[in-house]
Amino acid sequence: MATTKTNAAAAELTPKCLTLGNMNPNVKVMEYAVRGPLVTRASEIEKELEKGVKKPFNEVIKANIGDCHAMGQVPITFIRQVLALVSLPELLEDPRFPSDVKSRAKAILAGCRGQSVGSYTDSAGIEIIRKHVAEYIQRRDNIPCDYQNVLLCAGASDGIKSVLKLLIEKVDGKTPGVMIPIPQYPLYSASLAEFGMEQVGYYLNEEKNWSLDVSELERSIAEAKKTCNPRAIVVINPGNPTGQVLARQNIEDIIKFANKHKLFIFADEVYQDNVYAEGSKFFSFKKVLVEMGEPYSSMELASFMSCSKGYMGECGLRGGYTEVINMDPEVKAMLLKAISAMLCPTVLGQTVMDCVVNPPQKGEPSYDLFQKEKQAVLDSLAVRAKMVADTFNSFDGFSCNPVQGAMYAFPQIKLPQKAIEKAKSLKQCPSVFYAFQLLENTGICIVPGAGFGQKPGTYHFRTTILPQPEKLKSMLQKFKEFHESFMKEYN
Amino acid sequence: MATTKTNAAAAELTPKCLTLGNMNPNVKVMEYAVRGPLVTRASEIEKELEKGVKKPFNEVIKANIGDCHAMGQVPITFIRQVLALVSLPELLEDPRFPSDVKSRAKAILAGCRGQSVGSYTDSAGIEIIRKHVAEYIQRRDNIPCDYQNVLLCAGASDGIKSVLKLLIEKVDGKTPGVMIPIPQYPLYSASLAEFGMEQVGYYLNEEKNWSLDVSELERSIAEAKKTCNPRAIVVINPGNPTGQVLARQNIEDIIKFANKHKLFIFADEVYQDNVYAEGSKFFSFKKVLVEMGEPYSSMELASFMSCSKGYMGECGLRGGYTEVINMDPEVKAMLLKAISAMLCPTVLGQTVMDCVVNPPQKGEPSYDLFQKEKQAVLDSLAVRAKMVADTFNSFDGFSCNPVQGAMYAFPQIKLPQKAIEKAKSLKQCPSVFYAFQLLENTGICIVPGAGFGQKPGTYHFRTTILPQPEKLKSMLQKFKEFHESFMKEYN
Repeated sequence: MATTKTNAAAAELTPKCLTLGNMNPNVKVMEYAVRGPLVTRASEIEKELEKGVKKPFNEVIKANIGDCHAMGQVPITFIRQVLALVSLPELLEDPRFPSDVKSRAKAILAGCRGQSVGSYTDSAGIEIIRKHVAEYIQRRDNIPCDYQNVLLCAGASDGIKSVLKLLIEKVDGKTPGVMIPIPQYPLYSASLAEFGMEQVGYYLNEEKNWSLDVSELERSIAEAKKTCNPRAIVVINPGNPTGQVLARQNIEDIIKFANKHKLFIFADEVYQDNVYAEGSKFFSFKKVLVEMGEPYSSMELASFMSCSKGYMGECGLRGGYTEVINMDPEVKAMLLKAISAMLCPTVLGQTVMDCVVNPPQKGEPSYDLFQKEKQAVLDSLAVRAKMVADTFNSFDGFSCNPVQGAMYAFPQIKLPQKAIEKAKSLKQCPSVFYAFQLLENTGICIVPGAGFGQKPGTYHFRTTILPQPEKLKSMLQKFKEFHESFMKEYN
Repeated sequence: MATTKTNAAAAELTPKCLTLGNMNPNVKVMEYAVRGPLVTRASEIEKELEKGVKKPFNEVIKANIGDCHAMGQVPITFIRQVLALVSLPELLEDPRFPSDVKSRAKAILAGCRGQSVGSYTDSAGIEIIRKHVAEYIQRRDNIPCDYQNVLLCAGASDGIKSVLKLLIEKVDGKTPGVMIPIPQYPLYSASLAEFGMEQVGYYLNEEKNWSLDVSELERSIAEAKKTCNPRAIVVINPGNPTGQVLARQNIEDIIKFANKHKLFIFADEVYQDNVYAEGSKFFSFKKVLVEMGEPYSSMELASFMSCSKGYMGECGLRGGYTEVINMDPEVKAMLLKAISAMLCPTVLGQTVMDCVVNPPQKGEPSYDLFQKEKQAVLDSLAVRAKMVADTFNSFDGFSCNPVQGAMYAFPQIKLPQKAIEKAKSLKQCPSVFYAFQLLENTGICIVPGAGFGQKPGTYHFRTTILPQPEKLKSMLQKFKEFHESFMKEYN
């Protein structure tokens, strides 16, 4: 013990090489609300509950993050069988596995050096999987897709950062800016902060179901041009955290706007399978842009997809792809070079991506089960999407747009003045104050609107629609009771 | 076709938003030789061979990259069984799997939210795996290890970049510099280029088996201080590309040097299981530093480990860990925040890391097979390490230090003047010229010394020792014949 004390004392005396004062300032300012202080507190509460601390609730419900399996969604059997077979190829001899699972696993292993998923792949991924992705995109859009434009990545976040990074360069002394929706998914604000790029927010139109107004885009870019050089626009469709599905006309308007201002388009389309509302349909930016013809069809675009969302929800396996179109070939070569230093995306993540883009076909033995499981997830999400929005709209002071797609609702709350003042006295955004109160009183963990951005003077939060139906119902009931007593206290 | 032509013409007319002229200049200058032009050419040759193009050889041997399974190394059964079970938990009921495989898989699944590897984990990894890593480090070093200092990552490269990134900050207007060995593993030069940090090379002493001379470290840092602010030193032990295993005394000297100059230590220890030479032993930097006592034992250090190397060679699965010690708690909080935006390292990579740090114990059913497979890989690598160095030393003009550890030999070649002039006339480094000649004539793909750095006027290359024994023998024979005819041509 004496030694330990001496060491500790000495350690305090030895100045650190790396301190808050001399570390990367971009890392210091970045924030990532989906895993921020509220979530940290939620985890603490979980540990307190484990230790037997008495609370007005028995469990923490993590409605803060689109983590499907964590909330009880069941993995798709076909995907997991293929994973098991490529991991342990002796199972290829096992008669219990269907022949289509085996043929998928064999094709992937044939694409691996030494027939092992333990080998490095090309940095852009296994060629046969890139080709399957290209075929999937081609079927989806009815537009040709060159597999050499497809780069596999470790989840969409990885792909997004790889392309975003290319834009880091001052032009005429001006910092590069990237237009992002407000509210936005905080990967964007975090990455822009890390890269020292300027965040150019444009407000989504809450009154028109979170669509994009060209007049607002024009306002935003005109404002931004005073201080930075806007080089790209990010659009998230279906929306996160806002759950809208963009109409084709709206996409055309955005493309025209991007063309007018020479912006590189980032189409975050990871929720392309998550469309629930009647009349809503997913159109990829690529399809719309190509079908608009010249000059739009030669615009530069990167589209991102993930196996973390959709009906598969394989967040932990880190699979995804980027499709780049019309990228300057010299720039594309640089992109490929840049990703090569990180060797390759995980082969098992690539495997999941293959299952998603090359699912069992009619007539194959896994087809019926695959369709049944996929449809069950999507149907249940559709029911929950409606349940969440409807329930919130029945709360005093709540207004919630329909959840047309994705996995989130982003309701607005009219908070009483007293609650706003209380929050301010605690130096918290009122949306943060509300979320902390909800957490401490009910165990429900949501993300305050402040983490995504919201119009000044408005207060929101994001909740996922992922708790299983029974749990979701009871969560909404608890939420309602909390909200009523909160309003009583502060009205 | 008419449309296509018109589109193509229009595309040429539409100026790109993102060009070589306005893209990230750091990405432009970065290089990653292990996957550089030589490897690109090797892949082209493979495709030519497939198409039936006649060559003086039948196959390309990729001795450029430490890609174990690609070169025929067989995966460890225990690891693959655990992977299959966590991927497809219904196999937990299968009596063919040993009980220790099942208990490992169950423990990992219990650490996953919703008991699924498809859920996100904490950004630093699953707690139980972090604890197993801490126990492994404690056993290895006989020094306490706090699991909260252990961060799982997607391969060591991911961990290294996450910590390196923290050091990006000008102090007194000076660019941060990082000392790296020359020759070095090009992840370092590539990452420093990407981050706009200065590479401060120190030469390893080839005459003393690639050890580190303090006088050379002093020369290097004195030189560097004229232009930048050296903040950290990277040491790769066992060495890549150089294959040395540092003596304990040498490590002590380096630690004293780092302490004197207040440098953060990056200990790249991914080859800690790959020690072959008699009398060589792996000492972790942490063990030596702690055992040296104050002031050294409170120095800041990050150590990196991977499941891509060792006896497991699971490169494609992207598992690894970082241990940070004595890091300023506020800085550590920033590190955790920074990695949180990337959500989490792949759960199946984390699973492999768990198998490595928590292998079957004596008395468990998988123990004998695990030990047998592990020892077979390490014994065979030891034989190949000796075979490669001995064979190269028998070549006219070659000198090769013993391969004490890791997976590479880095021989020096005395090239004839005529060859050097020929290379210069082609605007190639002579080591690059030699490597291209070797590739085109034999199909053997190595990485020229220029990709790692070498003393001016000396020429080297890196080859792995990974081809299986018979193939390695025939590769060395082909190499010998090539070298003899090369020397004849240019002497």
